[in-house]
Amino acid sequence: MYTLGIDFGTLSGRALLVDVRDGREIATAVFDYPHGVMDERLPSGKRLGPEWALQHPQDYLDVFTHTIPAVLKDSGVDPAQVVGLAVDFTASSPMPVKADGTPLCFLDAYRDEPHAYVKLWKHHASQPQADRINAVARERGETWLQRYGGKYSSEWFFSKLLQILDESPATYDAIDTFIEAADWVIWQLTGVMTRNTCTAGYKMLVQDGQYPSPAYFAALHPDFGDVIATKVTGEFAPLGGRAGSLTPQMAEKLGLPAGIAVAVANVDAHVTAPAVKATQPGVMVMIMGTSTCHIMSSDSMQVVDGMCGVVDGGIVDGLYGYEAGQSAVGDIFAWFVENAVPPEYHDAARAAGLSLHEYLERESAKQKPGEHGLLALDWWNGNRSTLVDTELSGLLIGATLATRAPDIYRALIEATAYGTREIIEAFEARGVEVKELVAAGGLPDKNALLRQIYADVTGRELRLAGSSQSPALGAAMHAAVAAGVYPDIHAAAEKMGKLKAEVVRPIAANQAVYDQLYAEYKTLYNTFGRGANDVMKRLKKLRNEARGE
Amino acid sequence: MYTLGIDFGTLSGRALLVDVRDGREIATAVFDYPHGVMDERLPSGKRLGPEWALQHPQDYLDVFTHTIPAVLKDSGVDPAQVVGLAVDFTASSPMPVKADGTPLCFLDAYRDEPHAYVKLWKHHASQPQADRINAVARERGETWLQRYGGKYSSEWFFSKLLQILDESPATYDAIDTFIEAADWVIWQLTGVMTRNTCTAGYKMLVQDGQYPSPAYFAALHPDFGDVIATKVTGEFAPLGGRAGSLTPQMAEKLGLPAGIAVAVANVDAHVTAPAVKATQPGVMVMIMGTSTCHIMSSDSMQVVDGMCGVVDGGIVDGLYGYEAGQSAVGDIFAWFVENAVPPEYHDAARAAGLSLHEYLERESAKQKPGEHGLLALDWWNGNRSTLVDTELSGLLIGATLATRAPDIYRALIEATAYGTREIIEAFEARGVEVKELVAAGGLPDKNALLRQIYADVTGRELRLAGSSQSPALGAAMHAAVAAGVYPDIHAAAEKMGKLKAEVVRPIAANQAVYDQLYAEYKTLYNTFGRGANDVMKRLKKLRNEARGE
Repeated sequence: MYTLGIDFGTLSGRALLVDVRDGREIATAVFDYPHGVMDERLPSGKRLGPEWALQHPQDYLDVFTHTIPAVLKDSGVDPAQVVGLAVDFTASSPMPVKADGTPLCFLDAYRDEPHAYVKLWKHHASQPQADRINAVARERGETWLQRYGGKYSSEWFFSKLLQILDESPATYDAIDTFIEAADWVIWQLTGVMTRNTCTAGYKMLVQDGQYPSPAYFAALHPDFGDVIATKVTGEFAPLGGRAGSLTPQMAEKLGLPAGIAVAVANVDAHVTAPAVKATQPGVMVMIMGTSTCHIMSSDSMQVVDGMCGVVDGGIVDGLYGYEAGQSAVGDIFAWFVENAVPPEYHDAARAAGLSLHEYLERESAKQKPGEHGLLALDWWNGNRSTLVDTELSGLLIGATLATRAPDIYRALIEATAYGTREIIEAFEARGVEVKELVAAGGLPDKNALLRQIYADVTGRELRLAGSSQSPALGAAMHAAVAAGVYPDIHAAAEKMGKLKAEVVRPIAANQAVYDQLYAEYKTLYNTFGRGANDVMKRLKKLRNEARGE
Repeated sequence: MYTLGIDFGTLSGRALLVDVRDGREIATAVFDYPHGVMDERLPSGKRLGPEWALQHPQDYLDVFTHTIPAVLKDSGVDPAQVVGLAVDFTASSPMPVKADGTPLCFLDAYRDEPHAYVKLWKHHASQPQADRINAVARERGETWLQRYGGKYSSEWFFSKLLQILDESPATYDAIDTFIEAADWVIWQLTGVMTRNTCTAGYKMLVQDGQYPSPAYFAALHPDFGDVIATKVTGEFAPLGGRAGSLTPQMAEKLGLPAGIAVAVANVDAHVTAPAVKATQPGVMVMIMGTSTCHIMSSDSMQVVDGMCGVVDGGIVDGLYGYEAGQSAVGDIFAWFVENAVPPEYHDAARAAGLSLHEYLERESAKQKPGEHGLLALDWWNGNRSTLVDTELSGLLIGATLATRAPDIYRALIEATAYGTREIIEAFEARGVEVKELVAAGGLPDKNALLRQIYADVTGRELRLAGSSQSPALGAAMHAAVAAGVYPDIHAAAEKMGKLKAEVVRPIAANQAVYDQLYAEYKTLYNTFGRGANDVMKRLKKLRNEARGE
């Protein structure tokens, strides 16, 4: 028996066909979104403002029709053996639809209306709305705010919906339902509208089964008081559950049996947990790429400083799911490699047949901890968790005339590890224990030095994801649960989840040095992150003034 | 009538033939020291320890015999028209000699003895001795210490002499006189031993005509109590004075008239003052190259925080001469250009037919102050003045994923300008007024952006040296005074000194932004330079431990 996991990323969707007995990955196919990320223009040519990022929902449907038949064909598997499918998605990426699920942007009247499209997770033009959501929540003493680290993001559901009301009331009026793209694609597959508890909890402010009060929403905008009743209807569906069955029409299009299980939608980061067997409390999964997302289940609900959110059943039904993150990790290394490495290293890497990343890793791995004399604060793109402050910026201290590129490269890797340790300590300070670390994503796979540094800095054993397609695998596991192959996600994780055999263990001598360096990091963190010296914010202010912004 | 100025630098010596009427530069010739800087081995092959830097005194004599006949020949000037010569030199670069002036290293018995050679200014292996000199001075409450910013340097005369006593007592015993190379070359030209008041004051602890007491020297080492009486004999000779006359033997070798005036020796930085007409109180000369030296005369003697030194007649006889400095300026820009600029800028510079410095200057000149959002502390090679701390290091704050090479390049230039403003403010805080700035050296000549930034950051008009060979020109002016052409250096400066016509004026709008950025610099300066957070020192300690140093 097999299930399909379909992973919707920022630029493409991927289908993975998995054997439910052991998680074996049978076949995969990727489809690039024809419209990609629309951040300059609509398909009609209409210009978008700064910080906009839209997607076209037709692209998601095209992922299904292009990838599922392809993996079935490639694998040679009899479609009758496929018992379920599930998706994971970027979040929050919501869209306005009519009562029958038709996206507003599919209607001629709205093709030229930016607010009719999917607002991709990284659409930041709703920052003014996020600011209002936070200010009003603080003013009113809304208790849910602390469960989001004290700050609701411009990337999230209500910021985006409120932006529509603010900027295009007519479009707002035309919306029957505002829905996460994750839940919308499930609706398209099953004909049933659901709202998964993961995005509901992390992005839609659902805590203890409730949205914030109408009075709160009304305080944001007089016409927003009935937003839940009029625009955000629909039942919550727990992760691992069955959203519905594949409709005959979709079954025919995809070459799958009609009526097979379609699981409740999920978020790409969160769905990674079962893929790496991390469904039990205290196992922190780091999904490491351009940024890092930290995901962990726990049996206790605590308010952790500056976390992204804690949601009942947010990762695994029956446990509290915590999310935290670092807004730039691989992005910092990429910035460095692209912008601050002199030609001699490019040449040497080429001569050695290595990528520049690999060459710098090799060179900086020759050093001992502390040997470069550098320390950095990993805030090149602000701080997402613990401080939740986009106005912070990067710092490098300790440079001398003898400082070379591999020194800085290593210091930047270390800085991101200190940032992760800071997050772990924030959890543990509230009694939420972090027992083990699992790293997923391309970054730890490629960089052995990074793996060792993370183990040394955090003082914890590090395990590595066994699949290079963990989100799709995690989705396929949810499909197996929805299909009734396994009673719950823990059982599915035990059989289908995958970890590499390698265990990266902290080296005591390195740990001793990194403890000292981390203490220095922490002092700088407090100085520049907690208000003792807000120079980073003032520099950004001067920068914006100079640019006339 | 003409005079010759001979400028002894770190790697070469230069002779300049100058018309005494107007300072017109007639001819010049450069001779590279055959032995260069010996920092790894003696000529015999014997290995030197870390931080050693020696020179061979024969190289200095060779400068005279190679360059003076060459400029005479090139110029076509009748040697009978040459009325005097003078030298300026790096300092402190002292050497052990016998009573007749023969360098110890010329004697077969000492050819293989490192301590027999000239210890070049940048010989830092005498740091333990400098530490002792400072500790004992503080312990004993020696009042002269404050005239050196509270710290005597490993680069200076007595650190180097004490190192010989510590490490090679037999060599120490063999020394009849320990003398600055500057004074030694004058001795070779005239047969007369003098000690110029400039090096005597700045490097040899002579204050108010006196060395520290024998009791102080004895406290450094039991055999050092009589160091002045036995190793540092000789009269002080004021700047602008005549040391003696050119001996017939030297006259013949050089093709000059015997008996012409030879001026008292001088230091390369200090001799620049008259070359740029800066002999009056309150005109600060910045000699800008790899590092910057700040030189200024004043009619009042004050204790300025962290200055390099204040010496009666140290620049101009009759005024108090102040010296301060920044230990890396051009060196920081060179470090950046060599170590942190990606290939695309190298390629673009080449395509534009510019050096990488020029290209980065052009690109960063397109920005407004504050636009890059960055701030740096200019301590890549420690802090020479105001903090006098070699253990400090560089800091860059404000980096984002959008930061590019021209941003950092500009931030580094600005950082060095803030460092200069810090020095100016230290002077003014003690009532030593800084009215005007004059920039000499290659750096300000080449970089218009740098000139404007220095004017904007300091809020002062900036003038530029009129000669690209200011030290040699300044020496030639001292020769003219020694020869009696002018009654004093002020008169010589008026006729022979040169400033470019250009006056770089601060731009009010830029000043306003830089005042804000300087306030931020100052806060970071205090945090990391004045003990609030000694992370830079702890990072160096960890670095040294990791390296097993």
